Amino acid sequence: MNLFVVRVGNVGGTLVDQIKQQQKVLQKNSNIVVRVTGLANSKKMLLNSEGIDLNGWQDQVESSSVIFHKDELIEQIAELNLRNSVFVDCTANYEIASVYKKALENNINVVTANKIACSSDYELYQELKAICLKNNVKFLYETNVGAGLPVIGTINDLVHSGDRIQKIEATVSGSLNFIFNTYDGNNTFHDVVSQAKSEGYTEPDPRIDLSGVDVKRKILILIREAGIKMEFDDIEVKDILPKACFEVDSVEDFFNLLKNDEPTFQEMVGNAQSEGRKLRVIAKYEDGKATVELQAVDSTHPFYNLQGTDNTVALYTDRYVSQPMVIQGAGAGAGVTAAGVFADIVRIANY
Amino acid sequence: MNLFVVRVGNVGGTLVDQIKQQQKVLQKNSNIVVRVTGLANSKKMLLNSEGIDLNGWQDQVESSSVIFHKDELIEQIAELNLRNSVFVDCTANYEIASVYKKALENNINVVTANKIACSSDYELYQELKAICLKNNVKFLYETNVGAGLPVIGTINDLVHSGDRIQKIEATVSGSLNFIFNTYDGNNTFHDVVSQAKSEGYTEPDPRIDLSGVDVKRKILILIREAGIKMEFDDIEVKDILPKACFEVDSVEDFFNLLKNDEPTFQEMVGNAQSEGRKLRVIAKYEDGKATVELQAVDSTHPFYNLQGTDNTVALYTDRYVSQPMVIQGAGAGAGVTAAGVFADIVRIANY
Repeated sequence: MNLFVVRVGNVGGTLVDQIKQQQKVLQKNSNIVVRVTGLANSKKMLLNSEGIDLNGWQDQVESSSVIFHKDELIEQIAELNLRNSVFVDCTANYEIASVYKKALENNINVVTANKIACSSDYELYQELKAICLKNNVKFLYETNVGAGLPVIGTINDLVHSGDRIQKIEATVSGSLNFIFNTYDGNNTFHDVVSQAKSEGYTEPDPRIDLSGVDVKRKILILIREAGIKMEFDDIEVKDILPKACFEVDSVEDFFNLLKNDEPTFQEMVGNAQSEGRKLRVIAKYEDGKATVELQAVDSTHPFYNLQGTDNTVALYTDRYVSQPMVIQGAGAGAGVTAAGVFADIVRIANY
Repeated sequence: MNLFVVRVGNVGGTLVDQIKQQQKVLQKNSNIVVRVTGLANSKKMLLNSEGIDLNGWQDQVESSSVIFHKDELIEQIAELNLRNSVFVDCTANYEIASVYKKALENNINVVTANKIACSSDYELYQELKAICLKNNVKFLYETNVGAGLPVIGTINDLVHSGDRIQKIEATVSGSLNFIFNTYDGNNTFHDVVSQAKSEGYTEPDPRIDLSGVDVKRKILILIREAGIKMEFDDIEVKDILPKACFEVDSVEDFFNLLKNDEPTFQEMVGNAQSEGRKLRVIAKYEDGKATVELQAVDSTHPFYNLQGTDNTVALYTDRYVSQPMVIQGAGAGAGVTAAGVFADIVRIANY
């Protein structure tokens, strides 16, 4: 395996450290040789076809004299013509996702934590899959939904054996899960969102999370893996926040609005509690339709007992009818995400 | 892929039907050609190196003139010397498990729903793994614990990336789950066990389930996959049933004893309920020790809300610390088990 890791930030850096720790173990226990042949940060890149010495890799990247350029990197990987090359995308970046096609066409495998390619145009998603089939090269992205949770591989396994996904219910936003699992009316919605922001669960502008765009991308990817053709705009987002929240300009104004609007949120959570229900942002697919919606669920619902930032995916299929298959756990964080990317890399090594 | 399926009973027969349904789809969508080259029931076998026509496969096996013999089958598969041969064991049989070594040594992949090989001597388990590494051949058994649930693959993914399993908690017996999820003191323990038997959830002698031997095998397999050396006899079974139940001879005497002992069971469930707890048979690994135990869990425990026969595996690791990764769903039944075997076969096709 020859890995080219773009970029060595939070997830990418953790991945390189995990690889450094596991290289010898993998070779001994599984006959898998993992070499890091390329590393890039947002400015510099470092290539070594013999494998980069991972002691002090941070300094080596920092002091590299080669400017990072995405297209040139792909060209150089292709020129090296190494067996089992893997382009590893640890960004959330549109620009980086735009080179997958070129990589796959040059027989370079792609492993990505970046959701963009799989949740943009269906045509692009299908095109990437078709190139893989034609060139016998792999495009893996298990971490796109639920980080280290085995969600996409499981849907693939079900579909391959002829099972049919009837319904998906999922809570797949760590930040939204934290907010609605923590807000209970004894605190204020303003303070809970503020806490989620300061603990790094949300984007600097929490409305990016609260708009549901990230959840839309994730449910769309699951739906497509289930073999269903759907576009991003086909998914409806309902009722997460009052419209006014998205109409004010600054983040500061947004927080002021939350503070002034507390009675609205109190009423919302109070209504749910009076019926013994809890608020959850649930992404749902059923009967060809997908929605992301703030729902009040009762104690019989599989998501009633969720805590903290945990993600959950419930799959109802022709074979899992009465009770769904449920996969649950930490769905974000550098450690578990890097581990999920690592698992995809090992999967390619095993091919 | 050239598959040799032993035996075409409940799981094996369902698998053959699933393959028949999916052959064309897999070829078209994934470039995977799956041929069934051999089929066996307990008496007869049928081989065709060109692939058996799956229309009316049952009659073809039934009317075959070739007597099934496990060692001869392996020899014949080896002689055919086909690329990507897979010996598929859908039995629960000691005898069949005894030929895996010979198969793997002859570069025949093994996919099995049979727990015997992985839960017998650790030395055998290690030997089979070593042959795989040496011969670059695969031995896959995802269905051994939880049928179609992605449990073993997930533990492998975690371990490969350097995560460490700290603790496992699991309810992995459909029959025991049914019994203790259904018995609530408003019914009798006798009637619940009797219902579990008549609905086919237990062995004809339900004590085989209630002895915990099946659960011991399953937790042992998970522990070994986590990289820990352990033997079957190292696992302690506690408190599932009073000793006397295993000391009477016949199944009839056992059921009479349950009837007469109802006050004991009423007390047991009553004590739990008075503390707001529910009874669950939990297999547990922690700090180098493993147990299978009837426990009374409170509402904060991840297994409190279990229903029916559903299996659950909760993994606490260095990276999943505060909340475990949880995988839950139907862990038995011909459809989901055959699908799990099918997924292992597709995994080999993708290698």
